[in-house]
Amino acid sequence: MKVQVNRKAHFNAAHRLYRKDWDDAKNLAIFGKCSNPNYHGHNYEMIVSVTGDIDERTGFVMDMKILKDIIKEEVEDAFDHKNLNIEVPEFKNLNPTAENIVIVIYNKIRPKIPSRLELEVTLYETPRNFVKYSGN
Amino acid sequence: MKVQVNRKAHFNAAHRLYRKDWDDAKNLAIFGKCSNPNYHGHNYEMIVSVTGDIDERTGFVMDMKILKDIIKEEVEDAFDHKNLNIEVPEFKNLNPTAENIVIVIYNKIRPKIPSRLELEVTLYETPRNFVKYSGN
Amino acid sequence: MKVQVNRKAHFNAAHRLYRKDWDDAKNLAIFGKCSNPNYHGHNYEMIVSVTGDIDERTGFVMDMKILKDIIKEEVEDAFDHKNLNIEVPEFKNLNPTAENIVIVIYNKIRPKIPSRLELEVTLYETPRNFVKYSGN
Amino acid sequence: MKVQVNRKAHFNAAHRLYRKDWDDAKNLAIFGKCSNPNYHGHNYEMIVSVTGDIDERTGFVMDMKILKDIIKEEVEDAFDHKNLNIEVPEFKNLNPTAENIVIVIYNKIRPKIPSRLELEVTLYETPRNFVKYSGN
Amino acid sequence: MKVQVNRKAHFNAAHRLYRKDWDDAKNLAIFGKCSNPNYHGHNYEMIVSVTGDIDERTGFVMDMKILKDIIKEEVEDAFDHKNLNIEVPEFKNLNPTAENIVIVIYNKIRPKIPSRLELEVTLYETPRNFVKYSGN
Amino acid sequence: MKVQVNRKAHFNAAHRLYRKDWDDAKNLAIFGKCSNPNYHGHNYEMIVSVTGDIDERTGFVMDMKILKDIIKEEVEDAFDHKNLNIEVPEFKNLNPTAENIVIVIYNKIRPKIPSRLELEVTLYETPRNFVKYSGN
Repeated sequence: MKVQVNRKAHFNAAHRLYRKDWDDAKNLAIFGKCSNPNYHGHNYEMIVSVTGDIDERTGFVMDMKILKDIIKEEVEDAFDHKNLNIEVPEFKNLNPTAENIVIVIYNKIRPKIPSRLELEVTLYETPRNFVKYSGN
Repeated sequence: MKVQVNRKAHFNAAHRLYRKDWDDAKNLAIFGKCSNPNYHGHNYEMIVSVTGDIDERTGFVMDMKILKDIIKEEVEDAFDHKNLNIEVPEFKNLNPTAENIVIVIYNKIRPKIPSRLELEVTLYETPRNFVKYSGN
Repeated sequence: MKVQVNRKAHFNAAHRLYRKDWDDAKNLAIFGKCSNPNYHGHNYEMIVSVTGDIDERTGFVMDMKILKDIIKEEVEDAFDHKNLNIEVPEFKNLNPTAENIVIVIYNKIRPKIPSRLELEVTLYETPRNFVKYSGN
Repeated sequence: MKVQVNRKAHFNAAHRLYRKDWDDAKNLAIFGKCSNPNYHGHNYEMIVSVTGDIDERTGFVMDMKILKDIIKEEVEDAFDHKNLNIEVPEFKNLNPTAENIVIVIYNKIRPKIPSRLELEVTLYETPRNFVKYSGN
Repeated sequence: MKVQVNRKAHFNAAHRLYRKDWDDAKNLAIFGKCSNPNYHGHNYEMIVSVTGDIDERTGFVMDMKILKDIIKEEVEDAFDHKNLNIEVPEFKNLNPTAENIVIVIYNKIRPKIPSRLELEVTLYETPRNFVKYSGN
Repeated sequence: MKVQVNRKAHFNAAHRLYRKDWDDAKNLAIFGKCSNPNYHGHNYEMIVSVTGDIDERTGFVMDMKILKDIIKEEVEDAFDHKNLNIEVPEFKNLNPTAENIVIVIYNKIRPKIPSRLELEVTLYETPRNFVKYSGN
């Protein structure tokens, strides 16, 4: 009996869509105003979803307090009130599109979740744009 | 052409996370403040999702009025304004975690839905924590 | 690495549930007040979901500005502030249930999305009723 | 000690912005696509707000079950799944703009609420447009 | 230049509508299923609103971190995962209706907010029922 | 008969809380992580509220299409995908706290709204923090 458990979290960050190996004109041509060299920002909202069998002892798939702490350490402490391009090492050479951010978050959380459990991460860049990644 | 149709519903209930075969100290150690012997409570919000072929005659996968009545009889009338641990027989010997509640709801609704249709139930314990179960 | 990207959109429209080959009494018997000959209406909210590999060049699965334009041309311009039964050709002989509307939307958008990408459409008829279709 | 109590409700309806004493061209010039002769529609969401002293006996400003019944009789039964222009007598000669609808709702509910209590009605025509009226 | 600043918070609690000086039959007659002796519960969501002049030095009406701490100490720590009737002293002899709860919250927070600032508290008992109090 | 009409809008921007006449250490001491020199950002959501008598001719307090255009020109075009500290002249010497931003927005919109109408602006910095200003 597999159940999916979901936990919401959030962080606020600045970013710009930008490739270092392109000049500003090319970045602007491809990414438009999202490439503004002075940055813009978002309230990113996340849903972290973990799926697996219920532990009969506790009635939990996974203790949500533990999941909450993993999200805090791996994502909130690392991304919140940061400039993703400048201050988050994963984006030093990776364009921080929503797609790339959700994969980075997945890869940071995945090793902390027992391997018997499936993981999916949903990331809202705005209330109108969001992305989802489950590792394959 | 399979379409998923979804109906939202809700109930308000008290509960505590608790195993009868553990003493209060052990319940507290594992479940923390969720194990408060005086109970706490939630506005549970549900999404009942039914997937199947469209009935060409009506253009419906399933008449939503019928689904609404099934949810009312099986879930709202049984759980709303109740203490899940004391008053809902399914939790007499089952810890009412969100995971166990969503399975109980699924099992109560499943026999009322035609077997050709798939069923999934999503249960929000809070706006920030939710679970999903689809029967396997 | 497949990521799902999602874009929300919306349109307001009038409709009635109605089959031309049934008389008003039979339409009323099956569809109830949704069959009112004078129509009623909804704020339809949509989520268009596109899944595929990230383009390493841009970091996008698909440029959301292009997706936004496709939704505008195929759905918003065609359905917004319209009477679905009278003014939208697809419903001339098709009952505009939420199920049928979501399939029509899917079929209008599908040819505009590169075939290597998967498509799913979610349609909220009300905040409490919604449907989902992914083409099979 | 005045407290405001609020109750949400909703109805789905068709309408068009239209003055009978103007021809279609003038209606179109002023009201644009909202004047479509074939109608469009909305999921109207309402908040009915009642303010007054707490009844020390019950701890209520007003019994919400009574307020719920008043809203059902005066608004939901009268407007839900209706064409406002054709089927709701108040709009026979009154353009059903959100502003006029909220005043009509206020005037229908006001006589049913004890005069010692203040009334305010908020009406969402869409999630992005809403109006508020408190009787003066 | 007065600005209102608002902070959301939440707590989960059990309660029943109940007066000690009435017997169970009378409590049931007046309060219906909300009077269930075994309790039910809610996810209470709060908005704490503080209005006043901007401090020109900081650009703040009030430091939101301080407001957040006041809400945590006075409301969340006192009410969260509690049974309001049994465990919260303010409701020992006071029926925990939404109206009475919002006044108790106001009275707990008011002394911690500088007197030059106005205070209003909004309390959602469910997403469909909420109350508001501003001290007079 | 005064009615309040409301229109939602939004913009995404980077900012930092910062006074030029304080050094970085003092900015950090007062504003904490919100003062990060590399900026962070938000999805700002706005509600622009206009209150006045209904124009009997149209049934409108104000044509919402006109209000929508004013918001676009004065706020969205000026703030969206911008760095508020660097690129928006109003914040050259003004700390872009939510309180100061809402006043700047009010002051930009106020001259475009007929003086017989009252104006209020609500600004959500995050879904959990918001501010409101009505000009006095």
